[in-house]
Amino acid sequence: MVLDRNWYTEASDELGLGFSLKITGKLHEEQSDYQTIAVYETETFGRLLTIDGLVMLTDRDNFVYHEMMTHPALFAHGAVKNAVIIGGGDCGTLREVLKHESVQQVTQIDIDERVTRISEEYFPALCDSNDDPRATLAFEDGVAWMANAADASVDLIIIDSTDPIGPAEGLFNEAFYQQCHRVLAADGVLVQQSESPLVHSELIGEMHAGLQRAGFADTHLLSFPQPSYPTGWWSATLAVRDARELQMPDSAPGFESFYYTPAIHRGAFAQPAFMQRILGG
Amino acid sequence: MVLDRNWYTEASDELGLGFSLKITGKLHEEQSDYQTIAVYETETFGRLLTIDGLVMLTDRDNFVYHEMMTHPALFAHGAVKNAVIIGGGDCGTLREVLKHESVQQVTQIDIDERVTRISEEYFPALCDSNDDPRATLAFEDGVAWMANAADASVDLIIIDSTDPIGPAEGLFNEAFYQQCHRVLAADGVLVQQSESPLVHSELIGEMHAGLQRAGFADTHLLSFPQPSYPTGWWSATLAVRDARELQMPDSAPGFESFYYTPAIHRGAFAQPAFMQRILGG
Repeated sequence: MVLDRNWYTEASDELGLGFSLKITGKLHEEQSDYQTIAVYETETFGRLLTIDGLVMLTDRDNFVYHEMMTHPALFAHGAVKNAVIIGGGDCGTLREVLKHESVQQVTQIDIDERVTRISEEYFPALCDSNDDPRATLAFEDGVAWMANAADASVDLIIIDSTDPIGPAEGLFNEAFYQQCHRVLAADGVLVQQSESPLVHSELIGEMHAGLQRAGFADTHLLSFPQPSYPTGWWSATLAVRDARELQMPDSAPGFESFYYTPAIHRGAFAQPAFMQRILGG
Repeated sequence: MVLDRNWYTEASDELGLGFSLKITGKLHEEQSDYQTIAVYETETFGRLLTIDGLVMLTDRDNFVYHEMMTHPALFAHGAVKNAVIIGGGDCGTLREVLKHESVQQVTQIDIDERVTRISEEYFPALCDSNDDPRATLAFEDGVAWMANAADASVDLIIIDSTDPIGPAEGLFNEAFYQQCHRVLAADGVLVQQSESPLVHSELIGEMHAGLQRAGFADTHLLSFPQPSYPTGWWSATLAVRDARELQMPDSAPGFESFYYTPAIHRGAFAQPAFMQRILGG
């Protein structure tokens, strides 16, 4: 079957994989200072946000990604007061972080203000906590922000970026991880989106090794479904600054969730056998 | 991006979703008595088997599906001697069942012998246990087979079928579930592929209700990634004939696996919050 122009397709020659959503129209497209941002209306997945032709999120399935980029790390830490989000301009991650009552301050640092402004217009539900007094939205370079941040000043760093090839490349290397390590408090944790276990297992292995070389005591891979990303199987990497026991919650989160539960939290830490062999343990 | 004929695409207007694999050629295509069966060579996913234009499996990712259709049910039961597979003509499920030493007899009943013959030729790894003396391959109608089977004669029924719309429709209704219930031993379990939690949650809810109405004491949803099926997020439904405690294994399975581990087993039972609301509890 050859799809016509009523379908939005993201295909990668390198991965040999394509994903398509049936669309009814393009609502917006612009070239910002950094990238091309577009919004489509799909038939069955609500609205679709793309950057440089890659799917960032859809209304229908972003809940899994945003919940899994936040709640496991926050509950595993147990007492996050000060959180930083690098990237995350669509504000969905910010919204989830702000559901935690322990949180007193969240700074979101995305280089491209246009992603946030477009999200406010086309994905208002993701942005409905942007006015929370605990939230600060900064539009600058995340690598520079981290280099200038004070030692041991942050409990949780969330790296909610695009792929490691392209503008976000600087967020996936050891030098950046060293800065994150320095900026985290002793009991601090970092969580970073880490691509697909099936087709990016080598990259995941390198990320974990890089985090450990940068001084992180321990790293964990969290797996979850994400239908609109390549393979539909995605992951986040959780890194612990100093050796510590992570908390495993037993009770409901105390706010509404659509994917996350305490059992999902525990299950997400389970490694597929092939990833165990790559990551060791 | 519009994909050219170097890509195999499965797209559903109803789901508004498409999945594509880059192919280097078509190795085989035939119209059997029941369906159109084709085999393609892909660039990055090995060989691809399709039936009536729908992806059945690829070399690269079938391990998740086949391991999750078998090992959780077998280990949860704890002492399966006599197993039956309805469908499963590619023989990948059969191969996994035969890895369990407790198993003395497995009967695979697929209506279409051509699926098995084509798999033997193009997917030999999936068929490498077909000559196991414990295995019987029958090519007949699964509904009729079940209606003729003796009461309480089977420990495990695995329903490894195509989608509930089409030839496999008769495997997703209450009358068939009643026959399965009759044929299972008191401590018996049934496992059936049950589509995507994200886009088939209503169907899953109906399946669970149908199994319970047919007399099954309890039903569980197992979730796992399956990149080459729609949304990349798939499930199996495990139904327990009579009320019993399911076993949760703690030690490695004692054979090579690529996805399955005891932690994956436990994690697969975790329900996404939205599925908890549909299934209750």
